[in-house]
Amino acid sequence: MTTPVAVLGLGAMGLPMATRLAESRRVRGFDISQSRLALAEAAGIEGFTSAIETVDGAGHILVVVRDGVQLNSLLLGPDGILDHTAPGATILVMSTVGIQAVRDLEPEVTSRGLHFVDSPISGGPRRAGLGDLLINVGATPEARAAADPVLQQLASTLVVVGDRVGDGQALKTVNQLLCGIHIAAAAEALNLARALGLDPQVALDALQAGAAASFMLGDRGPRVLQAQQGETPDVLSQVGIFVKDMGLVAHAARGVGAPTPVSAAAQQLYLLAAAAGLASDDDSTVIRMLAGNLPPTDPIQPQE
Amino acid sequence: MTTPVAVLGLGAMGLPMATRLAESRRVRGFDISQSRLALAEAAGIEGFTSAIETVDGAGHILVVVRDGVQLNSLLLGPDGILDHTAPGATILVMSTVGIQAVRDLEPEVTSRGLHFVDSPISGGPRRAGLGDLLINVGATPEARAAADPVLQQLASTLVVVGDRVGDGQALKTVNQLLCGIHIAAAAEALNLARALGLDPQVALDALQAGAAASFMLGDRGPRVLQAQQGETPDVLSQVGIFVKDMGLVAHAARGVGAPTPVSAAAQQLYLLAAAAGLASDDDSTVIRMLAGNLPPTDPIQPQE
Repeated sequence: MTTPVAVLGLGAMGLPMATRLAESRRVRGFDISQSRLALAEAAGIEGFTSAIETVDGAGHILVVVRDGVQLNSLLLGPDGILDHTAPGATILVMSTVGIQAVRDLEPEVTSRGLHFVDSPISGGPRRAGLGDLLINVGATPEARAAADPVLQQLASTLVVVGDRVGDGQALKTVNQLLCGIHIAAAAEALNLARALGLDPQVALDALQAGAAASFMLGDRGPRVLQAQQGETPDVLSQVGIFVKDMGLVAHAARGVGAPTPVSAAAQQLYLLAAAAGLASDDDSTVIRMLAGNLPPTDPIQPQE
Repeated sequence: MTTPVAVLGLGAMGLPMATRLAESRRVRGFDISQSRLALAEAAGIEGFTSAIETVDGAGHILVVVRDGVQLNSLLLGPDGILDHTAPGATILVMSTVGIQAVRDLEPEVTSRGLHFVDSPISGGPRRAGLGDLLINVGATPEARAAADPVLQQLASTLVVVGDRVGDGQALKTVNQLLCGIHIAAAAEALNLARALGLDPQVALDALQAGAAASFMLGDRGPRVLQAQQGETPDVLSQVGIFVKDMGLVAHAARGVGAPTPVSAAAQQLYLLAAAAGLASDDDSTVIRMLAGNLPPTDPIQPQE
């Protein structure tokens, strides 16, 4: 029997990832939400409300949280795991927290005899449950080797970006720059199409068939049309995620002096949407900022 | 023997289109450049330096020029064809000139007993020569039927956008909004990747394999990397084209009150590139504005 895997954070991504791992491993899961823990237990995951308890005896510790603040808290806060993790274990940061966050943590982790793997995920909840994620890895060869069995179970595509912790976050940051721009561009395009009197569905199909195509236009396009028609699209990825990620893009770019005028404009669109109360809505709803068809009674929703 | 087709403008797109048509039709071609006429004659096209002479006896007249100014001049200027075209002929505007330009011309054309077809092309010179273009059509059913044999010979994909002249331009405008943003985004992404210490080729391959993918990232990406490395990419589509087309996007959007913050930022990037002397260079060279690796001796080049 292999040593158990600990999954810290059983949210939209953490729960299906833990469920996937539980197909062939013992999995211990942590979340602050009792409802998420109940879902985890139903999937065969042993649930805990203490992160320190969760990592007890675990050989791999996956951190799947929202942002760098939560990551730091889990590792170094009052219930922080770092001083309670057996040397030799491997910590994998699966969240998009930015380059600086993992680089700052690296000495804290490695000085305790732990492997540290920067391995942010892409692909969404459904693919997470199928082991079909794309994972960008930045870590030493030794840490990568230690993490490999778990990563292989979660990913259909593993990209070894580089040997440095932060390289995975760096590529993910660039990835999010493109994704964030492409979603905003899809919203701009379909809003303009309708304003010009075109049938938005005809326009979407024609645009996606040619040089204007993007993965995001194809993926978000149908939900953008729903939002355009006043419907509420299913929440597959929140506006708040791109508020965070476009912030990471801006921070990383500023840090290295790289101009990013187009992503800066897209960032403002997500900020406008969040300010209008859409932070927890699907990111396809950014079109509402352009179309002016905001639900008038939509209250400001705090980010979870 | 069918009546001849006239092609007005034998530039990067007009010449391969005329050559394609000449495989099975008599084609008469007009250009102000003797060197383009020589290329046309070598491809079996009868060349003229007068547009009025060119359209003599033609059943279809394709206008493949740079912009609305050239279009207006060809139709209504001193050598304008409209008063010298036999009633019943069909005029096809194949260029991206914007919605207003074709709507303004429509009464001038139809009042003379001519069919008018708004049919801007996408696909680039190579596909033009293979009859593999994407063509967006806005025209009455009667005008579409008249134009159909010629359009079928040029296009692998014909999208009937609507019955109004201007509908083809409208969809093409939205198409260019996306293309212009996606190229600028590709440049921003690959510039940021390098600035963050990533291998740009590794980054490009990984990004294009996932949610960050776009047709333009795949198509322009390799040339963006060339420009990033200080090489001069082949000119397949000029910066000046997107200066024009993002201007049409801005004009159309303003006309209907549609906000376009992201394409506005991309537009400024093309304007910056043109101001730096890159107007006749490949559009992938916009990365030079971000990377600051402008060739110091590059003179300001007027748009052709």
